[in-house]
Amino acid sequence: MNRRHTIALDAMGGDHGPQVVVPAALRFLAHRTAVDLILVGDQARIETQLAGKAAAKLRDRIRVRHTTETVEMDESPAKALRGKKDSSMRVAIDLVKSGEAHACVSAGNTGALMATARFVLKMLPNVDRPAIITAVPSLHGHTHMLDLGANVDCTAAHLMQFAAMGSELVKAVDGVARPKVALLNIGQEEMKGNEQVKKAHELLSRSALNYVGYVEGDGIYLEDVDLVVTDGFVGNVALKSSEGVAKFVRHTLSAQFKRNLFTRLAGLAAMPILNAFRRTMDPRRYNGASLLGLRGIVVKSHGGADEIAFENAIGIAEKEIHCDIPRRIAEQVGRHLGEAPPARDVDDQDQRRATA
Amino acid sequence: MNRRHTIALDAMGGDHGPQVVVPAALRFLAHRTAVDLILVGDQARIETQLAGKAAAKLRDRIRVRHTTETVEMDESPAKALRGKKDSSMRVAIDLVKSGEAHACVSAGNTGALMATARFVLKMLPNVDRPAIITAVPSLHGHTHMLDLGANVDCTAAHLMQFAAMGSELVKAVDGVARPKVALLNIGQEEMKGNEQVKKAHELLSRSALNYVGYVEGDGIYLEDVDLVVTDGFVGNVALKSSEGVAKFVRHTLSAQFKRNLFTRLAGLAAMPILNAFRRTMDPRRYNGASLLGLRGIVVKSHGGADEIAFENAIGIAEKEIHCDIPRRIAEQVGRHLGEAPPARDVDDQDQRRATA
Repeated sequence: MNRRHTIALDAMGGDHGPQVVVPAALRFLAHRTAVDLILVGDQARIETQLAGKAAAKLRDRIRVRHTTETVEMDESPAKALRGKKDSSMRVAIDLVKSGEAHACVSAGNTGALMATARFVLKMLPNVDRPAIITAVPSLHGHTHMLDLGANVDCTAAHLMQFAAMGSELVKAVDGVARPKVALLNIGQEEMKGNEQVKKAHELLSRSALNYVGYVEGDGIYLEDVDLVVTDGFVGNVALKSSEGVAKFVRHTLSAQFKRNLFTRLAGLAAMPILNAFRRTMDPRRYNGASLLGLRGIVVKSHGGADEIAFENAIGIAEKEIHCDIPRRIAEQVGRHLGEAPPARDVDDQDQRRATA
Repeated sequence: MNRRHTIALDAMGGDHGPQVVVPAALRFLAHRTAVDLILVGDQARIETQLAGKAAAKLRDRIRVRHTTETVEMDESPAKALRGKKDSSMRVAIDLVKSGEAHACVSAGNTGALMATARFVLKMLPNVDRPAIITAVPSLHGHTHMLDLGANVDCTAAHLMQFAAMGSELVKAVDGVARPKVALLNIGQEEMKGNEQVKKAHELLSRSALNYVGYVEGDGIYLEDVDLVVTDGFVGNVALKSSEGVAKFVRHTLSAQFKRNLFTRLAGLAAMPILNAFRRTMDPRRYNGASLLGLRGIVVKSHGGADEIAFENAIGIAEKEIHCDIPRRIAEQVGRHLGEAPPARDVDDQDQRRATA
């Protein structure tokens, strides 16, 4: 209990690199006492960001690990994996593999992070592919959803694995005894959906999970479920569409308040309420998606994250260390898959797609 | 020019049947002069709704066509098609086929509407499957998106057909000379996405359409595109997720204003702005999705539509009659598919899925 943990941060990842990652690291350290950080990336650029007063007090809890390469945001995962063995992303993951760090966080290229993490850390038993999971705000507090883009073509057996992993995560981090698991579909009737979804529905219905059936897209935000399971293409589109609507709403609302002097005054009166509303909806509070199914903890931050958002992603990594997520998944997922057919019938092409 | 048009309404469809459809019909007739309506459904229930003063003035522009059956919202499309030849939905479509009506509108079961419309009206040349299209609000006014649930498994060639049809629709109804067509994907880089999407990207890049490349989910609302093309599963999830977020936002915002006396007063001051905001975002203004690719005009209303929303769907049918959409698609789609491989390699199973 209460032993110190270490988290490695890919300081070069994301749209802003050390300019965001280092201040986020300092914020995080100021708020937490039992965690140390390793900042991985260009030493000179990191030290520049560490040159302030605030950093001095926290400096003994920070190590800098110099690397010479950076994975670009639009670089092919295969190229990053083969060609950049001294990238900040790769070395941050290597630190998890070696046990020097208990988790790593990166705002870098998702595909490269997936491929590298899978190659370096390997999969847990009974899991074929990593899946990306995150929490989204909902009428009932929040809902977890996976997969969010790691796997563009999934079989029913993969969806079943995602459900088992996600359920374990929710159990651990939210303390929900029997998380309500739903499958994303285009209707709630049995006959709707594509073949994978219908087969996954059968597998989930026979499983020991607390499966509550199909939800439609709006159910992610409106229905009382703890976990929504879908393939990576659909999950990614659902999440990004939602972000788009939320941005559109914020823009439209603020445009209405700026129309004239009267609306500006009304806006002033309504300011505290609007601010409270913004906090509830703040996407930064939900930044940080975990790569589940690996033999180690890897958290992906949004590429455009600011320091508050990136700090949140570090917090997610810390929580998963405390909950010992990979061990729990290793122990529990096989049990849930007892009644499901083996998913090992995945062909090579599928495997390649997963990391493409 | 200015000749009278007739639209058939499935008065029994949707969650509320004649209670919503008949008042919506009266609203529509009061606002438009050159259109007559045929209300299809249970005569007694329709007449009850027509018994007011408002109806008397408009009564000569309404015909009632009695039917004895109703397609249930959760009925299988195949069962509805084979078993209910005197349903309000079927007869409304039959009226389009016979030429008595120029278009029909239904808030009924989407699958049944699709299957019945396809069986009765048949497909236009060069089009394999109908696709559902609607407009959604965006930073740039609005964007059209298809397919929204008619087809859960699409080939690249189908996506190409959807793009060509959607582009013609946007050209006609919005008067855009060269609509900007985008393909929905999970990243904007060439290597991302599944196989269909990558192939469709190639077909679209070679086509005469004004193809602008990939957009991600948030691009539907934020990017300057006129048409977003995707398969029915993804499109449906994107649309429903967006509806869910919008509802969640409205709920959260109104909860913030109701917290205490002060926030209620602030809410009162902000009321006109919030109302203007609600109008901009009002989903009722966007109710009405067209089934493209058929030899006739069929508009689907949201099942839960109220009379303002259903009136909007009738307006969409009217606009498509004016623009002569099926003829335009028949004339133009073949041209755009000139360079695409024939899509007739669709197997029987695919065909069955499309109406499942």
